Amino acid sequence: MSDLLQDLFTVLSFQSISTDPEYAPEVRKNADWLVEKLSSLGLETTLHETPRHPIVIAKNAHSEGRPNVLLYGHYDVQPVDPLELWDTPPFEPTIVGDKIYARGATDNKGQHMAHLKAIEQLINEDGELPINLTVLLEGEEEIGSPNLVPFLEAHKESLPCDVILVSDTGMVAPGTGTMGYGLRGISCCEVHLQGPDSDQHSGCIGGSIANPATEIARLVASLHDSEGRIAIDGFYDTVEPLAQWERDMWADVVGMDEQTMLELTGAPALHGENGYSSAERLWARPTAEVNGIGGGYQGEGSKTVLPSQAFCKLSFRLVPNQDPDDIYEKVKAHFEKHTPEHIRLTVEKGHGGSPYRSDPHDQYGKVAQQALKDVFNNEPVLIREGGSIPIIGDFKRILGADTLMLGLALPDAQIHAPNENFPIANFEKGVELGKTLIRSLGKL
Amino acid sequence: MSDLLQDLFTVLSFQSISTDPEYAPEVRKNADWLVEKLSSLGLETTLHETPRHPIVIAKNAHSEGRPNVLLYGHYDVQPVDPLELWDTPPFEPTIVGDKIYARGATDNKGQHMAHLKAIEQLINEDGELPINLTVLLEGEEEIGSPNLVPFLEAHKESLPCDVILVSDTGMVAPGTGTMGYGLRGISCCEVHLQGPDSDQHSGCIGGSIANPATEIARLVASLHDSEGRIAIDGFYDTVEPLAQWERDMWADVVGMDEQTMLELTGAPALHGENGYSSAERLWARPTAEVNGIGGGYQGEGSKTVLPSQAFCKLSFRLVPNQDPDDIYEKVKAHFEKHTPEHIRLTVEKGHGGSPYRSDPHDQYGKVAQQALKDVFNNEPVLIREGGSIPIIGDFKRILGADTLMLGLALPDAQIHAPNENFPIANFEKGVELGKTLIRSLGKL
Repeated sequence: MSDLLQDLFTVLSFQSISTDPEYAPEVRKNADWLVEKLSSLGLETTLHETPRHPIVIAKNAHSEGRPNVLLYGHYDVQPVDPLELWDTPPFEPTIVGDKIYARGATDNKGQHMAHLKAIEQLINEDGELPINLTVLLEGEEEIGSPNLVPFLEAHKESLPCDVILVSDTGMVAPGTGTMGYGLRGISCCEVHLQGPDSDQHSGCIGGSIANPATEIARLVASLHDSEGRIAIDGFYDTVEPLAQWERDMWADVVGMDEQTMLELTGAPALHGENGYSSAERLWARPTAEVNGIGGGYQGEGSKTVLPSQAFCKLSFRLVPNQDPDDIYEKVKAHFEKHTPEHIRLTVEKGHGGSPYRSDPHDQYGKVAQQALKDVFNNEPVLIREGGSIPIIGDFKRILGADTLMLGLALPDAQIHAPNENFPIANFEKGVELGKTLIRSLGKL
Repeated sequence: MSDLLQDLFTVLSFQSISTDPEYAPEVRKNADWLVEKLSSLGLETTLHETPRHPIVIAKNAHSEGRPNVLLYGHYDVQPVDPLELWDTPPFEPTIVGDKIYARGATDNKGQHMAHLKAIEQLINEDGELPINLTVLLEGEEEIGSPNLVPFLEAHKESLPCDVILVSDTGMVAPGTGTMGYGLRGISCCEVHLQGPDSDQHSGCIGGSIANPATEIARLVASLHDSEGRIAIDGFYDTVEPLAQWERDMWADVVGMDEQTMLELTGAPALHGENGYSSAERLWARPTAEVNGIGGGYQGEGSKTVLPSQAFCKLSFRLVPNQDPDDIYEKVKAHFEKHTPEHIRLTVEKGHGGSPYRSDPHDQYGKVAQQALKDVFNNEPVLIREGGSIPIIGDFKRILGADTLMLGLALPDAQIHAPNENFPIANFEKGVELGKTLIRSLGKL
């Protein structure tokens, strides 16, 4: 294995699943490794405790007159189930063909480690960095960054910031430099229905009381109308329509055509809100997705019960100018309105994050597009992102800076899913991009 | 513990879960114990192998001129999950207050063991039985008795039968003798939906392809109309309307009033098909129940996936003259009609059984009602049953005899659920009933 990959493989072996308390020691191991690594580069590195997983901060020696650049990434990862669908062990990084397979390979260890490698190489080659760099790596992105906002608010004076650099988004196709200027927001919740006190015999009781699994299905079915629109009162009130230049630019964007989308996902057909293309549905329209639904017997064979409970876990992807708290209240009101008296409803609020959009044509955006062009040898594509990085909006609000989203994630990266992967080439190009960009920013 | 309970506790300790292959050795242990026990009473006992779980047959010496009586029971039980909701270990029978808690306590070990104890006592007291008895105990009732019908067809010549005795149904209230003359049938199936090849990121892909969890919810929601009727084409075509004498008889049947039903289940309100009482909904109207629904993330916290698959396990309870195969075809056609092209549907047929109804006023019915009256000191109540015992209809078809359903199961027995229980008094009354009935049948 090349020296370049050695550190990446080390961090990919940490089982840093942030949502499950059982894995907290593994999250910690990853943080400790980062502190040691960044310190070894001569950066002043500190580990900040939070109520859950720590934040790692590293800085070079700052001096007047140079741009203040904040590099953000997250070292936590999503859970790995269903484990049986992985072809290689998720925490034993494995090269198959020209890709690295591991949980976190793309999201986000592969991407932030490319930038750390770029910093290491610049320091080795040039003796110092041409910018005032602050590295910020958190361990709670996959659970909604609950402790990062308080941290930013408490430490904003020591986080000088003209521009923020994040690689945690997508490339439209292999080898095509891609710059994101928008993100969807998110609002999550969990819905529980309780019927009888305990599971009942479906013959002896079935027909005389409501079935929570049937009722949860009816509630989920009530979320969309027949046009694929979300049927929650007021859901679209603050949604900004797409600009015509965006619709034009995205009309033939590589990787978003029907055939590619079908090959990528294996779905039998595209499906979504009527009147919009896939790119528009993903980047500029809100959604209501069931992340999990459950109730009653889950095992082999049959069990003729009328279950006592059922649940669904939901996430709503939001676009400018929807507000996650406002959407949660509307979702909750929808379920309260649609739940009949013969079943008991509980709605629990989950994490949320605002949608985001910046001007891709400011001075930093231009530098970034030039760096992409230099590294990938083609015109960069400007997109929005379907995913959510709530912290990007928080950075803008608290630190006052916009973010350059220079994504290295390919559409078939399988992030959040079994067999997550990252091409070795993307890691190498990421290192090159980090170096080119930091050198260019130093000339501003 | 009394000698009477000793054998019952022994069989309750066998983990004879028929649906799960892992428990096959435990099912076998129970069968072997029964063979040994019945042989020890002087009955000619044989264990018949089937492709799955064995059938136990025991006979006394038959002679001309006496009624041929077949006693049926099943020694297999339902699974025990969710295990954490049990207050006592399901396979360590425990007396709390005046009840025995264990899986199978009521369904069906407690009930058939009461009859075996009656036989034991009659043999001990009278030296012999006054009837030609055939005991038939199977180990596959909870999985739809797949091997019993072939067995009956192969052995019907050696299963002489004027009347069949089964205690596997309900008593309307403690101490109220109850005779069942009808059973609902059942038709089970499992529905799978497949969307993308693997779980997708709900941000990066959500909105552009269908979500199987949303689609399964829409399919489940399509099963009922707003009146609580089943919205499957032709579902009610062959349903016999309730007779007026049944509606009159059931209007104030003990244990089926609203308050008792709510206390029994803990449900916040009754709910079912409009225009029918609880007794009518349970005993004479068909249902569509979700026994299990699942898809996507089931663990703690959130995981923002768009799941690749979702499923539901369904059971339809049937009434005369619905046919389980015909209903399955209609259910399948319903799902095929309602599944859009953007998702892949698979429907798997599960077990089925026909509904059943006999004449409660024939000579055997009269004897049974008198025995109930003698043992419980009150007028027996005539009911139908909400549950399904498909084999009762098969007995009629193959052996040509009707079944006396003399249920000892109380409404709060928690059969198929955690904390299944059986009052010691019901076991004792069951022994007494078995003795009284066999002696009376001997006089016919």
